[in-house]
This record gives sequence, structure tokens and C-alpha cells, in this order.
Amino acid sequence: MPEATIDKFKLQELLRRHPADMAEIISALKEEEAIELVRRLYERQAAAPLGEMDPEEAARLLSQLDREEAIRILSHMDPDDAADLLAELPKETMCDILSRLEPRKAKTLQTLLSYPPDTAAGLMSPEVLALPAHLRAREAITYIRRKAEEMETVYYAYVVDEENRLLGVLSLRDLVLATLDKPISEIMNPDVVVLPPDMDVEEVARLFDKYNFLALPVVDKDRKLLGIVTVDDVMDVMRKEATEDLLRVGGIPAGEDLPLDPPLASVRRRLPWLMGLVILNLSVAGLVSRFESTIAELAFVAALMPLIADMSGNAAAQALTVVIRGMALGLVGWRDLPRVLWKELWVGVLAGLGLGAQIGVIATLLWHKPFFGLVAGAALAGTTVGACLTGGAIPFLFKRMRLDPAMMSGPVATTIGDLIGISLFLVLATAFRAYLT
Amino acid sequence: MPEATIDKFKLQELLRRHPADMAEIISALKEEEAIELVRRLYERQAAAPLGEMDPEEAARLLSQLDREEAIRILSHMDPDDAADLLAELPKETMCDILSRLEPRKAKTLQTLLSYPPDTAAGLMSPEVLALPAHLRAREAITYIRRKAEEMETVYYAYVVDEENRLLGVLSLRDLVLATLDKPISEIMNPDVVVLPPDMDVEEVARLFDKYNFLALPVVDKDRKLLGIVTVDDVMDVMRKEATEDLLRVGGIPAGEDLPLDPPLASVRRRLPWLMGLVILNLSVAGLVSRFESTIAELAFVAALMPLIADMSGNAAAQALTVVIRGMALGLVGWRDLPRVLWKELWVGVLAGLGLGAQIGVIATLLWHKPFFGLVAGAALAGTTVGACLTGGAIPFLFKRMRLDPAMMSGPVATTIGDLIGISLFLVLATAFRAYLT
Repeated sequence: MPEATIDKFKLQELLRRHPADMAEIISALKEEEAIELVRRLYERQAAAPLGEMDPEEAARLLSQLDREEAIRILSHMDPDDAADLLAELPKETMCDILSRLEPRKAKTLQTLLSYPPDTAAGLMSPEVLALPAHLRAREAITYIRRKAEEMETVYYAYVVDEENRLLGVLSLRDLVLATLDKPISEIMNPDVVVLPPDMDVEEVARLFDKYNFLALPVVDKDRKLLGIVTVDDVMDVMRKEATEDLLRVGGIPAGEDLPLDPPLASVRRRLPWLMGLVILNLSVAGLVSRFESTIAELAFVAALMPLIADMSGNAAAQALTVVIRGMALGLVGWRDLPRVLWKELWVGVLAGLGLGAQIGVIATLLWHKPFFGLVAGAALAGTTVGACLTGGAIPFLFKRMRLDPAMMSGPVATTIGDLIGISLFLVLATAFRAYLT
Repeated sequence: MPEATIDKFKLQELLRRHPADMAEIISALKEEEAIELVRRLYERQAAAPLGEMDPEEAARLLSQLDREEAIRILSHMDPDDAADLLAELPKETMCDILSRLEPRKAKTLQTLLSYPPDTAAGLMSPEVLALPAHLRAREAITYIRRKAEEMETVYYAYVVDEENRLLGVLSLRDLVLATLDKPISEIMNPDVVVLPPDMDVEEVARLFDKYNFLALPVVDKDRKLLGIVTVDDVMDVMRKEATEDLLRVGGIPAGEDLPLDPPLASVRRRLPWLMGLVILNLSVAGLVSRFESTIAELAFVAALMPLIADMSGNAAAQALTVVIRGMALGLVGWRDLPRVLWKELWVGVLAGLGLGAQIGVIATLLWHKPFFGLVAGAALAGTTVGACLTGGAIPFLFKRMRLDPAMMSGPVATTIGDLIGISLFLVLATAFRAYLT
């Protein structure tokens, strides 16, 4: 992105683009240039692209501006985006900004900031179209016409009583299709699916996905209308959760490592995790050390140890991927652990028999030692059973312990599978050493 | 689900539920019961839940019904759902049904079936609200009122000329807010984002996600309006793609293995993959075999071989997960390969130095042999560089070869990392054997 883009002529062009495009351009610029561009986009125009950016990135930019500029931009942002951004700022900066915003706006933001970000309330926008129940269709349209400018979504309006308690939902479609002098309480659908403020975002995403909603209201326990969650926010959640699951399964413990991030940033994210895994893996090294005399005598058996280690990882990965995805889709919970274990036990036994037979035949043919085939087959079968069982169980246990099941299940299950398979391998090789030499 | 649910009383209750709930209940039933329930839901009511189900499952149920019943149900389904379902039926059944459907419906379905399922056209619904450009707002509302029943989404209407060429988009919101005698050509937004029929569904999902669209029109190269893609279809795609990426990375090659699937079904999906990996891993066994005399002499070195094998898998998994996710998000393509390789080279070198130093110190302390520390450190560093580079490169190569990069990258990169690390380990151990005994 050459500097020329920020000159006056190109700025006019930029202002005609969608905020999401502006956000993308800002993100691609060097920091000083990005700040310069945000400054030149002025208040209203700068507010929209900042709302489209990753809140962490937007907060970093905003904190580089004059406080006055930052406050003006923030007060033009959608409250839910503004709250997400504020949450990323240092505590003092956040408090200072809140104290200098218009009091009503500040109060809205403070309320939003008080909700945990991974709940329905943390996801919602407080700007919801609430219509008094006594309006007629014609009045409702006039009301909506007046309010539409401020609102994020006007595909649904919510009908409330005098105390802001939710009575029903009115789709713009129903309003357009209705006779104009009908009271909206007769047009509305009183059967509203509502979200409690503390519903987990994953559960919210499942509801949207299952029922194809475009927006759902959040109500407190007295059915008072707090805000609205829209499908675009839910899509962001879905993408984020999927990214997280995939990265955690792949062993990227924190943050979103991107393919073209600078190497040092990636090393800082990946190396601590790898160093931890080395420590975990030393248990396998310790185990093998105990069989030094067997290995000295039967050096050829060492050839299959990396294979058993790798296959343990492969079988464990299959089992835990299925379980982790099943958890993300809400298909299994803690109470399903026995059934999952029973299933993975059988998968392990059956797949283990298959793999054991395969390596048994191969080892017999390669080394001309049927007993070695037997030992290798039994060991690989044992590894497979162990890896399937632990791969199926550990995500449940970690989730129960409030650890991220996607993150640590893989290497732990692999190591346990290794320990089972390689100890079986070396114990059997030691027991049958007379037949193997 | 007890059989009683299907008796007349409960059926009435069921009919009040959302089609997605009915679909869930049908899926949970045994096959005969499910068929019985679908039969009792009669035409219109059975059409909606079948549209919410996985097309494969719905097709299985439908093919168990009388052909006449099946045809009646299909003719009540949304055309895009009906086409997805038909695509899952055996060719002759599909043709027979198409020939017996109402000709106009059959033609629509045939057109839909002709589009590849992973394109915008394969995702779209042909039922789109197209308004002639000469209408005024009032007439448009009347028109929409008449058509609304048949349409899947009426949040957007599309304004077209006499030859069905797209001129602009009209949101229901703009229509409600406009003065009633304004021509819609003055209210509409002529700046429409459109999807070409052959756009990849992942690209479509990225567009929806970035710009927060609720629906986008599909137009051919003459700008003729073909249909509409709605956000709920896109959410399904996103969920499916994320599931697939995760399962493929985890080594589940085909289908969607679920945590509570019967063991035999899971074994059938997982075992062939594992058996292939055994063959792949034999290359490592072959390599180790060549160093039998070193291992016989220095049996203790065998202790670290599983560690090197496992760490190769761990480092490769990190690199390839980042690349695969980056590809799914559209952040990197084939032309970025050199930059990704350069980055992963540095990550490998830096992380390798860290890990090498770590295992070097540990091995020296545990075995009291500084030279063994050096050998192990160099080997683990080599493994890490190899695994990062191959983990970063292989997804690109596989994608280029039109293979699923998520599926095979892991084990192949792990094996290559193994071969580099373990050969380095054993070559160095052999070279320094004088200092290691």
C-alpha cells in the first residue's frame, strides 16, 4: 500500500468503499501510516472501519491518537464494537475515556463491559428497535422510519410493554404485509425465542445455525429486553471458535498465528508449547532407558519404535478430533463419557487388530522372525487401544478441569499411547528375547 | 424416543414445533419409526423437516416411501433443499422422480442439479423476489405481499429490467422507509455486490463474513438474475468447512465421524487411513535398520528416538495448521509459498535452536555425556527445521495437486521430519561413537 493512497484525491475514493474494505486497507498499512489514515478519515468515517477491525488492533491504533480524537471516534461507533474496543485498552485509559464520554453513552458502554465476552450479553448490541404494544402498523412504520438511522438492524422490531418487557417479535416483512390500521400486538408473533444474558456464545451459535435466525433478543429473567444478537456477530463467533479449535488441536496454544506473521512472533507462540512437550516426552525416553540391555542385544527392534510412537499420535488424533468436534457441535457432554469410552474401546480393539495383523505380517516378512511379528503386532494393537481410549477420554477430563480440551489432549494422549505401546513392545521383546535373537 | 410420540395426540404437538426440531426428532428415531413419522406428517409438514435434515439422511428416508408419497413431499420442499436431496438419490430414482414432477418444478430442479455443489450457484435458491423497475413503492409492497408466501427470504428484493437483468437491490427496510409513490428505481441501491455462479463456496462465505450480508444475488455473465444465496446457507457451509478441516487435520479422511457413531462405522472410516500411515512410517523403520550396529553398541541412544519422532509431529502440526487455516481464510495462496517457506525456515531455525539447547542440556545431565547432548540437540534442531519447512510447504503442494491439504499434510510432514531428525541423530551418533561409549 503506497503512501499515495492517503493523499486527498485517493481519500475521497476510499470514503466510497465499504467500511470492511477500509478496515482491511488500514490493517495492511504500517502503524504510522494507519494512524495518519484514521486521523484523516475524521470522526464518523473512521468509526465504521475501526468497528470492522479486530478489537485488539483497533485499540492499538486508537491509543496512538490524541485522547480527544479517540473519544470523538468512539462516540460514533456502534456501542457493541466500542465496548469490545474499550475492553482491549489499559484499565486507566478505559476509565479516562468513559469519564469523558457523553454520560448516557458511557453508561451504555459500562453496562456492556460488565458482561463476560463469551456470553449472549457480551455479544449483543443494546440498540434494539422496541415498539410500544399499543401502536398500529401505520404508527409503527413511522416510528421505525424515525429510528432506523441509529439502528444496526431493523429487520425485526420487538414489541414491549410499558416496563420494557418483551411481548412479541414483529418482522419488517409482517409489518409490510399487514393492513395499516391493525394494532401491532395483533401482527406480532408472541412466540419469541429469547437468549438469556449468560448463555454461552457457542450455544448461541448453535441456535442460530439450527433455526436460521437473523437476530434474537436478549432478555433478563424478568423478560426485560436488554439487546439484540445479530447473525453477523454469530458468524464471527463461529469463525473464531473454529479457528481456535483447529489451532489448539494443531498445538498453537494462544493467539491467532497467521501464515505470514514475522518468524519471531510465531516462535514466541510456538516454542514454549514445544518445550513443554519435550518434557512430557521424556517419560517415554525414561521408559525406553529401562530396556537398554534388551535393545543392546536386539538392536533391530529399535527400528519399529518411531513407528509405534507416530502411530500412537495418529490414532489418538483421530479419536480426540471426533470428540472435540462433537463437543463444539453440542453433540456430547460429560454424561456421555462412558458411552464414548465404550465406543473408542471397540474402535481401538478392532483397528488395533487390523494394524497389529498388518505390522505383524510386514515385520515377519522383513525380519524373517515370526516372533518379532507377534511382538510388534501386539505392541501396535496395544498402542492403538490406548491411544483411542485416552484420545476419547482426555478432552472430557480437560474440559471438566476447565482446560481447553482442544489444546492439550493431543500430545497427552499421544504420550500415554506411546507409553502403553512402547512398554508393551519392549516388555514382550524382553520376554521373548530367546526367540528373537 | 418412545413410539408413543407418533400417536395422534403427540403428532398435533409435534406439528407446532419448528421444522428444525422435527428434523432432530426424526433423526433420533429408528429408521422404520422415522419413515412412519414422515408418512404421518403428510406432505406439506413433512417437506419442511426433510429440508432441515442432512440431505443424505433425508434421501435415505425418502427412498423408503412410496414413489407417489416421495414426489408429493418433494414438490412441497424449497427447490434448493429438494435439489440437494435429489442429488443424493441413485441416478435412476432421481430421473424417475424428475420425470413425474410438475414440468416447471422439474426444470428448476434440473437447472439447480446442473451446478457443482461447491459453487455459489450450487448454494443458491432460485426463488428470488424480482421486481420490474417501473413499479412504485406502493405497487412493490402489493407485489411483495402477493409473492411473500412462496419466497424463502423477502428482506431484499431485486430490481430487474424486462430481460431479468439485475439493476439494483431494494431492502425491505428502504421500501418501508420510502414515500409510497416513489418509483423503486429511485429507492433501490444500484451498487449491488453480486456472485458469479461458479464462485467457490469458501469465497462466498468469506464475502458474507467480511461484509455482513444477509443475502446476495447470483447473476450470470449477462447480469441475468439466477437466484439468491442467503446467510443461513452460508453458515451451513462455514460449519461444514470448519468441521472438514478439523477432521482432516485429525486424520479422519472421509465423512463426518461422530462421537457416538457405532464402532464399526468409525473403524471403517479410520482404519484404512491408519494402515496407509503404517506403510508411510516403514520408511523410518528402514532408516533406523541401517544403523543397527550403532544401536547395538550405544543402546542408550534409542531412548530418544520416540521423542524425536513425536516432536517432529508436533512441530509439523503447528506449521501446517497455521497454513491450512490461512488458506481457509483466503490469506495465502500458491504465490505466497516462497514467503511462507522463508518464514517457516526461520521459525524452524529459531525454535530448533531452543529445543536443541533444551534437550542438549537435559541429555547431558541425564546421561553424563556432553557429546550425547550435542548429538541429541543437533538432531532435534534438524527435525524441527525439517518439520516446519515441510509442514509449511506440503499443504501448498497438495492443494496444487488438487488433494485435500488438510488431510494428508500432517503424517507426510511428520514422516519427513522424522527421516531428517532420526537420520541426523543416528549419523551423528555413529560419527561420534568413539566419544559416546
